[in-house]
Amino acid sequence: MNDVMITGVGMTPVGEHWETSLRALAVGAAQAAMQDAGVQTVDAVIVGNALGGSISKQHQLGALLADHIGLRGVEAFRVEAADASGGVALRQGYLLIASGLAQSVMVLGVEKVTDMVGGERGATMQTFTDSEYETVQGATPVALAALLMRRYMHEYGVSLADFAGFSVNAHANGSKNANAMYRNLVKAERFASAPVVAEPVNLFDMAPEADGAAALILMSSERAGRHPNAVRIIASAVGTDAVAIHDRTDPLYLMAANLSAGRAFEQARLLPANVNVLELHDSTTILSTLALEASGFAERGHGWELAAHGKLGLSGQFPISTFGGLKARGNPFGATGVYQAVEIALQLRGQAGANQVPDPRIGMAQSIGGLGATVVTHLFSR
Amino acid sequence: MNDVMITGVGMTPVGEHWETSLRALAVGAAQAAMQDAGVQTVDAVIVGNALGGSISKQHQLGALLADHIGLRGVEAFRVEAADASGGVALRQGYLLIASGLAQSVMVLGVEKVTDMVGGERGATMQTFTDSEYETVQGATPVALAALLMRRYMHEYGVSLADFAGFSVNAHANGSKNANAMYRNLVKAERFASAPVVAEPVNLFDMAPEADGAAALILMSSERAGRHPNAVRIIASAVGTDAVAIHDRTDPLYLMAANLSAGRAFEQARLLPANVNVLELHDSTTILSTLALEASGFAERGHGWELAAHGKLGLSGQFPISTFGGLKARGNPFGATGVYQAVEIALQLRGQAGANQVPDPRIGMAQSIGGLGATVVTHLFSR
Repeated sequence: MNDVMITGVGMTPVGEHWETSLRALAVGAAQAAMQDAGVQTVDAVIVGNALGGSISKQHQLGALLADHIGLRGVEAFRVEAADASGGVALRQGYLLIASGLAQSVMVLGVEKVTDMVGGERGATMQTFTDSEYETVQGATPVALAALLMRRYMHEYGVSLADFAGFSVNAHANGSKNANAMYRNLVKAERFASAPVVAEPVNLFDMAPEADGAAALILMSSERAGRHPNAVRIIASAVGTDAVAIHDRTDPLYLMAANLSAGRAFEQARLLPANVNVLELHDSTTILSTLALEASGFAERGHGWELAAHGKLGLSGQFPISTFGGLKARGNPFGATGVYQAVEIALQLRGQAGANQVPDPRIGMAQSIGGLGATVVTHLFSR
Repeated sequence: MNDVMITGVGMTPVGEHWETSLRALAVGAAQAAMQDAGVQTVDAVIVGNALGGSISKQHQLGALLADHIGLRGVEAFRVEAADASGGVALRQGYLLIASGLAQSVMVLGVEKVTDMVGGERGATMQTFTDSEYETVQGATPVALAALLMRRYMHEYGVSLADFAGFSVNAHANGSKNANAMYRNLVKAERFASAPVVAEPVNLFDMAPEADGAAALILMSSERAGRHPNAVRIIASAVGTDAVAIHDRTDPLYLMAANLSAGRAFEQARLLPANVNVLELHDSTTILSTLALEASGFAERGHGWELAAHGKLGLSGQFPISTFGGLKARGNPFGATGVYQAVEIALQLRGQAGANQVPDPRIGMAQSIGGLGATVVTHLFSR
């Protein structure tokens, strides 16, 4: 099995790109990554995208985007696992290189949500949940997150304000990231009284859906040689769970995160304590909490304490959401998992600028589909 | 790189399954394949599906279907490349085994089009074409096929009736396949006068969209051992082209088919003449013609002759669409590429019953997305 290196990264700002098409966003990120890696072509393009077929009415994005990037003819296809699509795309790029069937691959995450507005757009997001057992009841992803949060608060005697640290940290880091959607600061004392979305989840608690594109160039270690940008992918793993939360044995236990992280740590022969910088899928603070617990970073019922005790900052004991996370950088669904890997690569290259974590050696990115039905974990080293 | 074997196949009948859900179709095919392979579990499930997000309002099908099959927790995700989704799913399963990262994988193609009816369903198929340059003009896949066919007839002085042999052969084979959607025979002399869909493409010329699911169990050769079902995948390759036909250098040249087939023949060190049985993506007879030419089975302008000269039958010089092809078995978009591989595996196992080609050694399946923007070619041997 060949070693897999990241040698180039690119991204667009995250936000509402009303006047930029899906394909233009993708091309922007792709060209930046190719320039960063110093390559003119790649053997394959893997596209991570969740809702292009529903929102932009465009399928077959693999061939379409490869062509628009100037790579007509190369192997290309799209993968989808709701907002874990970008993480799964990285997994596929990893497989192509690891198998020896490709020497260089572009992993391209892209999402364009502003091609649709209002309730119709909201309905497309409900397709991330179980259509026959959740959607038909009117459940939305955020409503389901609210049920999980309320249950968690009840089980462990935690208050809404106890989750504030996640958002305070994300916005503090996002404020220094020119590509972030929200660059305002969030005050801890204001957190619990923000306008409610689905009680107890509020506006300061949940990440915004957004447009954006991010790209990675992967190479075999042989092809990468002594490339100055090279960051090594030392583990790649996917876990799954029931999509419908009521089908899970324990709704407060993200089995897919446990499986995915467990497989990744086993592959890399590392432990959670070895991770120096982590990009979590913080679409809501409850999902961050549950993911930290299931992935081995905290005991059951204690994930929120990492935030409450202020350990998450760039110079803290355990930096997460270092460029703002989904909460402040924004959540362009199918691109999000690729943004995470781009950000970890920049951290390990020491090129994170004002968002730099001091001297990280091991990075981790975890991409979650919906409320935890698909979880993809990658580990990286310098 | 590990060798990849098919050790189990399963499928549902193709047709209009008004009372069976997408997930029930998928589970039926999956269970049949697991029983055929004699396995209780696999390391991963790769789902090929084109329109589930648009028609059945369900994304994240990887996790959802893995759970419903009884494989909760395994790696799972969906791949999409319009009606080449099933071929791409096989490619991903192949990569997982070839890389050594999995020892057994289920490739599961599924499509459920009857969750939507009328013009709204037709609109979902337009997402296979280029939304910004074709769909906005009102172009549908069949209308674009009609433009190609008319141009071909003009360039090479061929009449509509000259294409009849493709459909006559497909229906003759489909008539013996209990899983085929259409089991009626088509008479050559009636072909050119069938009701028109988009002139010159008519009802006898184009394949019907359909519901259906098909599944394959893949294993490493080490895991497969001396499995009695084992069929070897000796090549796997994807090629792409511009989605918009007017962007292609020559609209009558399927570059993606040429690239995909060329890469596959190179990998297997074989030539088109070595292929004993071929499942083509015969969504229209013009696409069959162009694919035969681009893949090296006929010279430019001569692909239709294979049909006109009656060479395509089960005992003919060059058997294609041996179970009815897309035309008679039906085209359940994201499942079609998996049906093709199932059918080739049955041929190579000598278990094709009334549809058996005499003693085939090398089989080929080619899956095409839309009008040829994504083409996946696999070669198989006993």
